[in-house]
Amino acid sequence: MTRLLLINPNISDSVSELIGAEARRTAAPGTTVEVLTAPFGVAYIETRFEALIGAYAAAQLAAEHHARFDAVIVAAFGDPGLPALREALPCPVTGLTEAALASACLLGHRFSIVAISQRIRAWYRETVHGYGLEGRLASIRGLDEPLADIGTVQGDQGERLVALAERCVAEDGADVIVLAGAPLAGLARTLRGRLPVPCVDGVSSAVRHAETLVALQPGAARAGSFAPPPVKPHRGLPPAIARLLDRKP
Amino acid sequence: MTRLLLINPNISDSVSELIGAEARRTAAPGTTVEVLTAPFGVAYIETRFEALIGAYAAAQLAAEHHARFDAVIVAAFGDPGLPALREALPCPVTGLTEAALASACLLGHRFSIVAISQRIRAWYRETVHGYGLEGRLASIRGLDEPLADIGTVQGDQGERLVALAERCVAEDGADVIVLAGAPLAGLARTLRGRLPVPCVDGVSSAVRHAETLVALQPGAARAGSFAPPPVKPHRGLPPAIARLLDRKP
Amino acid sequence: MTRLLLINPNISDSVSELIGAEARRTAAPGTTVEVLTAPFGVAYIETRFEALIGAYAAAQLAAEHHARFDAVIVAAFGDPGLPALREALPCPVTGLTEAALASACLLGHRFSIVAISQRIRAWYRETVHGYGLEGRLASIRGLDEPLADIGTVQGDQGERLVALAERCVAEDGADVIVLAGAPLAGLARTLRGRLPVPCVDGVSSAVRHAETLVALQPGAARAGSFAPPPVKPHRGLPPAIARLLDRKP
Amino acid sequence: MTRLLLINPNISDSVSELIGAEARRTAAPGTTVEVLTAPFGVAYIETRFEALIGAYAAAQLAAEHHARFDAVIVAAFGDPGLPALREALPCPVTGLTEAALASACLLGHRFSIVAISQRIRAWYRETVHGYGLEGRLASIRGLDEPLADIGTVQGDQGERLVALAERCVAEDGADVIVLAGAPLAGLARTLRGRLPVPCVDGVSSAVRHAETLVALQPGAARAGSFAPPPVKPHRGLPPAIARLLDRKP
Amino acid sequence: MTRLLLINPNISDSVSELIGAEARRTAAPGTTVEVLTAPFGVAYIETRFEALIGAYAAAQLAAEHHARFDAVIVAAFGDPGLPALREALPCPVTGLTEAALASACLLGHRFSIVAISQRIRAWYRETVHGYGLEGRLASIRGLDEPLADIGTVQGDQGERLVALAERCVAEDGADVIVLAGAPLAGLARTLRGRLPVPCVDGVSSAVRHAETLVALQPGAARAGSFAPPPVKPHRGLPPAIARLLDRKP
Amino acid sequence: MTRLLLINPNISDSVSELIGAEARRTAAPGTTVEVLTAPFGVAYIETRFEALIGAYAAAQLAAEHHARFDAVIVAAFGDPGLPALREALPCPVTGLTEAALASACLLGHRFSIVAISQRIRAWYRETVHGYGLEGRLASIRGLDEPLADIGTVQGDQGERLVALAERCVAEDGADVIVLAGAPLAGLARTLRGRLPVPCVDGVSSAVRHAETLVALQPGAARAGSFAPPPVKPHRGLPPAIARLLDRKP
Repeated sequence: MTRLLLINPNISDSVSELIGAEARRTAAPGTTVEVLTAPFGVAYIETRFEALIGAYAAAQLAAEHHARFDAVIVAAFGDPGLPALREALPCPVTGLTEAALASACLLGHRFSIVAISQRIRAWYRETVHGYGLEGRLASIRGLDEPLADIGTVQGDQGERLVALAERCVAEDGADVIVLAGAPLAGLARTLRGRLPVPCVDGVSSAVRHAETLVALQPGAARAGSFAPPPVKPHRGLPPAIARLLDRKP
Repeated sequence: MTRLLLINPNISDSVSELIGAEARRTAAPGTTVEVLTAPFGVAYIETRFEALIGAYAAAQLAAEHHARFDAVIVAAFGDPGLPALREALPCPVTGLTEAALASACLLGHRFSIVAISQRIRAWYRETVHGYGLEGRLASIRGLDEPLADIGTVQGDQGERLVALAERCVAEDGADVIVLAGAPLAGLARTLRGRLPVPCVDGVSSAVRHAETLVALQPGAARAGSFAPPPVKPHRGLPPAIARLLDRKP
Repeated sequence: MTRLLLINPNISDSVSELIGAEARRTAAPGTTVEVLTAPFGVAYIETRFEALIGAYAAAQLAAEHHARFDAVIVAAFGDPGLPALREALPCPVTGLTEAALASACLLGHRFSIVAISQRIRAWYRETVHGYGLEGRLASIRGLDEPLADIGTVQGDQGERLVALAERCVAEDGADVIVLAGAPLAGLARTLRGRLPVPCVDGVSSAVRHAETLVALQPGAARAGSFAPPPVKPHRGLPPAIARLLDRKP
Repeated sequence: MTRLLLINPNISDSVSELIGAEARRTAAPGTTVEVLTAPFGVAYIETRFEALIGAYAAAQLAAEHHARFDAVIVAAFGDPGLPALREALPCPVTGLTEAALASACLLGHRFSIVAISQRIRAWYRETVHGYGLEGRLASIRGLDEPLADIGTVQGDQGERLVALAERCVAEDGADVIVLAGAPLAGLARTLRGRLPVPCVDGVSSAVRHAETLVALQPGAARAGSFAPPPVKPHRGLPPAIARLLDRKP
Repeated sequence: MTRLLLINPNISDSVSELIGAEARRTAAPGTTVEVLTAPFGVAYIETRFEALIGAYAAAQLAAEHHARFDAVIVAAFGDPGLPALREALPCPVTGLTEAALASACLLGHRFSIVAISQRIRAWYRETVHGYGLEGRLASIRGLDEPLADIGTVQGDQGERLVALAERCVAEDGADVIVLAGAPLAGLARTLRGRLPVPCVDGVSSAVRHAETLVALQPGAARAGSFAPPPVKPHRGLPPAIARLLDRKP
Repeated sequence: MTRLLLINPNISDSVSELIGAEARRTAAPGTTVEVLTAPFGVAYIETRFEALIGAYAAAQLAAEHHARFDAVIVAAFGDPGLPALREALPCPVTGLTEAALASACLLGHRFSIVAISQRIRAWYRETVHGYGLEGRLASIRGLDEPLADIGTVQGDQGERLVALAERCVAEDGADVIVLAGAPLAGLARTLRGRLPVPCVDGVSSAVRHAETLVALQPGAARAGSFAPPPVKPHRGLPPAIARLLDRKP
């Protein structure tokens, strides 16, 4: 049995429900899924500053709860805190962007990202750059209106998102579409057959790849840059984070 | 039930057996695995010319047999013919390098490839470059002696391969080790716990990721550069390849 | 005297005639030119899968016939099989893309490629990327209608191709135009003076550069990644390819 | 008069003293300098996880105190939280790495970074990559022993650091040396004339460049990816961060 | 006291006046500024050939006059001769592009360059590429009409330049605008508050950064690629250049 | 008949003789070769400052003499002034580096440059970067002793140069060796068969490629960044350069 923890680094319970629903639809038999919502933060992340907050919230939740799970998923596009958690946690960790990009790279050469706002594009572009994958990025397109409700964006904006995806294929040369952002969890499934190229989202990709990382048992990092941080003095940290740094279970 | 076809684009039956064994150890319950060996070609691929031959052999086998399968795996590192088959086949296709690199990218930032010969490194480097992942490649190291028997290289050279992997971590900054080449299928499993960083191989990664691609049902490419080739005149081709080009089942 | 073999990796005799005519117009006094047409394959290559077929056809023809020539040219844009043949053949080998890009790089900083279809652009982009020259690629533009007859595309679509080239200069910043594809062989010559920047094609460039490689006598590769493939077991290969692998004349 | 806030995102008071001393030595007449030490965190940052913690601590201090200052400096190499704070704060913000690299780029073409540990190199390399400057990075070299005391590393390891810098020049082709890490604040000044190439550190560079950004009055971002984050619901955040997000003074 | 020499590598006295005025407005108390105009050359530089001429003129002026100054600024965008002078002169040297880009990189992630002509864009793009900063270049946009008078382009074309800058932000994703070219010296100051993102120009940036380089006292290059050229035979050179090469004061 | 002008941008007559001898050995029947030596400058170029001088000397010679020739070759490695002359001259122009790299790229994938000094490597690396070819550069290795006589370096240092080339192949992965620098003109010919990979030099490559550019008649640039510089005011220039700028024959 594989136990997956999905951490919504934002405060939006409605998005956590979308995440959980899609995760459960995707999970293999024998995989259990739990979604935790950040106790502090913003409704959804569009900027580097919001991502900084989400990263810390994700770290706190992961530090407190990881011991009960086989793998952890940072369930926001942009993967706030992912590389940090990969160092600190003893189990595999992935995130929605990393996982969706891995899927996209297995389906075609160049992918486009369809996103929920204009502003969010810079943060996504930098995330893709951080993963060294800008050579495969065809474009990032985003909705250009304020969102009425982050929990219902799929329904409210579905056709606009499809139109954006079609332009990514026709004008930008995308071979694959990545539907970006936890609020779009499940939309790839809903749109099945609607788009002219393969389409993936972050939650389903992350659940599958997390299961794979657990199954492959690749071993933990005892050296290299993902080994646990060297033990050193610290102060004033939440107890769970302190325990992680002290490498105490 | 997921049916996977693994194509060994080389003539080495002993390697096909290694591939099949590791694929079966990895496959989820309900996944069936079949391995086909190229009817023509070389013992193993180290060069671009050998890869050209393997690509054509893989294409013939895939054209003939794909209809019975849900996904196809090109089971040689370097992925001869993979992007071509992704265009032509109606089902997901992956390869050992692409799949191992996807796993590696989910486990750390920079990976090294440990390979069975010196000569093979140029072909691998170009494969990684073709995938746009050279920014994450820490190094490629290879054995520097002729191989006595391609089917027993794991046993014959196991300790040397471990030593190469350790140098990749200590000297080249690798966060993850990729054990490259179908002849090393299963070695990552055998070495579990021996290496100081996570370690993956191509066959187990490809089986897991192929299952994922089938499960995600991302849809087929009707547009973009992985749509089937436009129908046009052809001549003198093996019947199965001709049927693929004519888009006849 | 320099004897050049141009291999059309496609089955189109009309294109072979265009290739031969332009090659002869370009060849230096004392250079002889022979064009061979693939005995199997497609009418022209637009996709990776068609290139895989063309590469194998080119390899067979090259293996059978190279001994009578001083240099070999893969006479399709995209250069199917070129790096492989460079390893295996004892003489210089080039291809239409590689040669045209070399010419373009000697005439300006950024070049655009004008091509015969939309679909073909992905394959060309990947070819340019494989040569590490994407930093100098201004754009790739292609015709957007099905071709009535591959052998008469120059005449049928000449003005459209000129218009595409002009947009490459005015909108994309091209310093040089590369007219791509064997079916356009000779068009650069026809358009002389029509375009606002220097213009080259693959066949004339390849003939000149092949003559240069013969004249420079740079020596063969006995080491490095273009030395002949290590001798190893093989099976079921066309006799000429088998002889190449066995390094028998 | 220019008022600079330097934020030590770590808990090490001894390092804050080094930072403050070097900042005051560097500051122009009329510039005042204040250093704040993180109320929570680790002794010094070597890893992505520690940087995540430091980023949040820096954000809290910046949110609380920025209003009294003309510019803010994140005073740890690696610049934890810098791009996020640049969005959220109404004044210029820089960091030790960004500033030192700007100085280095004004003094030569390729720079090397000399650091206080081996482990820290991956984080620095990713920081340089994030700034798009890896093309100018000659190398990163680090001490390879545990540090007895982070506050006295300059004195304890000075000669070893000089030796590392000399190897960067002789073996790696560095034109400029960057002495990395707040614990090395002031060492560039101490070593003046000792190294064969120009040498800069982060604190002095950051103080000068922050003064420049204040003096140039380039204007604030009302658009683009460094405009303040769009106002949206949030919960449970420290009051100062909440005020920043609500754009209330 | 810091003495700065700004070299206008062109013959345009009206531009030298703009340069001098903006330099004096920017200079810190205690900094003196002198502007020299090239005795030979063109009115302003748009092309590589004009830059070659300007580089040589700048070198002559720098060789003759540098001894009286603490730092030298090549006061044309594109920085003709800058890397060469950095080798040869014993004091810090910077240029308008290098300095403006350093400022831009301290203010945001991606910058656009707004320029005085279409033709000039290729030279600027190559300059940015030479600095390894193309990853941060959002776009280069230029006026598309011949300039009536290079000395009054700010007034004549001010609104057109603002409109170009706004398109860089809205369409190209610029976080910062660089107003390029000595003829635009001071325009960033004039436009203060007009543009939606931070805006810098070359002269003010170069003056501030030159002061910084003097203040930091980073040391001279005795090794590496910016050490003075090795002494060797020469002939026919202007006496001041000959003295530089002979390392005679 | 093709008339080639080779410009030695340095004052070394002995090197001009080496250039001329190799050019004549390479030139096709019907090609005439003339070598001009710079009337001012240094003995040979190792640095950016020396290249600046050589560029201006080359420009003067080219402006004065080009009218009698069909193509011009800048006969120093590093190609001082080449892109500038390509704009200004009405005939094809190439240089030793550009031409040698074009040859190398037609012979293998990765090339190494073997050079006459350590110091020269930075300038060569930047030249390769300027051509966008760093992805194909395996290494640059240089002699590490002062040269007794630039005109006899081939004889004096021949074995050391061979040893450097062999290390490029064995340790750096070079497929092709470029012997760099006009003082090595002809050495590739002398070493024929000595090196384990193909080997080219600049002079022979430049002569062949210049002949090719003349033969292809690709047309002149009337638009794009290599069109002649826009006519504008100038002052104090050598008459031949002034005529070029005024586009007067």
